[in-house]
Amino acid sequence: MTTSLSPTGRSTLTRLRERARTDRADLYAVLDAGLICHLGMVRDGAPVVLPTGYGRLDDTVYVHASTGAGYARALDGNPVCLTVTHLDGIVYARSVFHHSMNYRSAVVHGTARLVTASDERLAGLRAIVEQLSPGSWEHARGPNARELAATAVFAVDLTDASVKVRTGPPGDDDADIAEGGRWAGVLPVRTVFGVPDPCPTLGEAAQAPGHVATRWAD
Amino acid sequence: MTTSLSPTGRSTLTRLRERARTDRADLYAVLDAGLICHLGMVRDGAPVVLPTGYGRLDDTVYVHASTGAGYARALDGNPVCLTVTHLDGIVYARSVFHHSMNYRSAVVHGTARLVTASDERLAGLRAIVEQLSPGSWEHARGPNARELAATAVFAVDLTDASVKVRTGPPGDDDADIAEGGRWAGVLPVRTVFGVPDPCPTLGEAAQAPGHVATRWAD
Repeated sequence: MTTSLSPTGRSTLTRLRERARTDRADLYAVLDAGLICHLGMVRDGAPVVLPTGYGRLDDTVYVHASTGAGYARALDGNPVCLTVTHLDGIVYARSVFHHSMNYRSAVVHGTARLVTASDERLAGLRAIVEQLSPGSWEHARGPNARELAATAVFAVDLTDASVKVRTGPPGDDDADIAEGGRWAGVLPVRTVFGVPDPCPTLGEAAQAPGHVATRWAD
Repeated sequence: MTTSLSPTGRSTLTRLRERARTDRADLYAVLDAGLICHLGMVRDGAPVVLPTGYGRLDDTVYVHASTGAGYARALDGNPVCLTVTHLDGIVYARSVFHHSMNYRSAVVHGTARLVTASDERLAGLRAIVEQLSPGSWEHARGPNARELAATAVFAVDLTDASVKVRTGPPGDDDADIAEGGRWAGVLPVRTVFGVPDPCPTLGEAAQAPGHVATRWAD
């Protein structure tokens, strides 16, 4: 099912429209493939952009913060922008002007809502943990009351978002292609996992379980 | 030489101070190792966070935009936040609460200044191109008058910035360590380059030159 990603028009791209994706499935795909987001907020009239974990459940994205973090107190009810970017390649063109990147990005505009219901808080935290470390919610000890009290969970609805994707070779000018003599192409960029490094306190029982070990073998 | 990164105090970290780095060399290191930044601005009172290329020259960071981009017209003289993040590892703890990430991040607060002097415009564009694709400024055709006219270059001074770095194993509670039975450790995350994919229009002269080919061999 395809639903408009930008009912307000705020996310309607005004440039390079051919890079826009308007299917909700594309939005999910970009978000679900990410490890961290960059969360933007406004403080004293100026933007602040911080990297943080996140998780998606249906049409809601969750982020969390320590209740001791300065920005956490200011988030509830305020506008945020949550951006997830995958850099897929560096695009070398014959001209510096046409140098570019291949990427997939999702930009979500919304209002942060402090989650107060216990069920939704737990579901949101689970989504955040599982986004970064699938399998950890089952394997690790769940949050206790003290830990929950120290954690603020925020929800952002996926009602206003844009997705941009660039793929393929550089878009050089015909004259530059005809002239020749310069290389052009794409240098792929990938995010990969290394060999799990066990905690020194583990001693002999250090072998990573399947939900960790299988990731670097991918 | 060490210079304070945050003369105004705006960037002074209020939480997890042990992750803060206050040496200017640390700021340079995080910025210089990056490929893209996330640029935050305020539009109609709401934050907007967009991924984009950037480059550093001494204590100035440059970004560029098409003069046709809606946000470019609104940037000059306005506050921005430019964030560069390297995700180095996923930190698996015995408790979900202590799950974390190893990372290096730089958050630069400043005001975007539209660069108008030709020399600085070229220097800024060169820095941006060389950040993403070292060697391209020499190899590729330089910008012509039409291309320069289509490109807005913005400078952000590195006077107010914070750097955070987390390294090492999870910080589990003693009781969880003593209980045992759960794995903990770090799954390294790295950004790697693949084999250069030549532009289909290159035909036989497709072998990547050294400034491209040596990157994926690193």
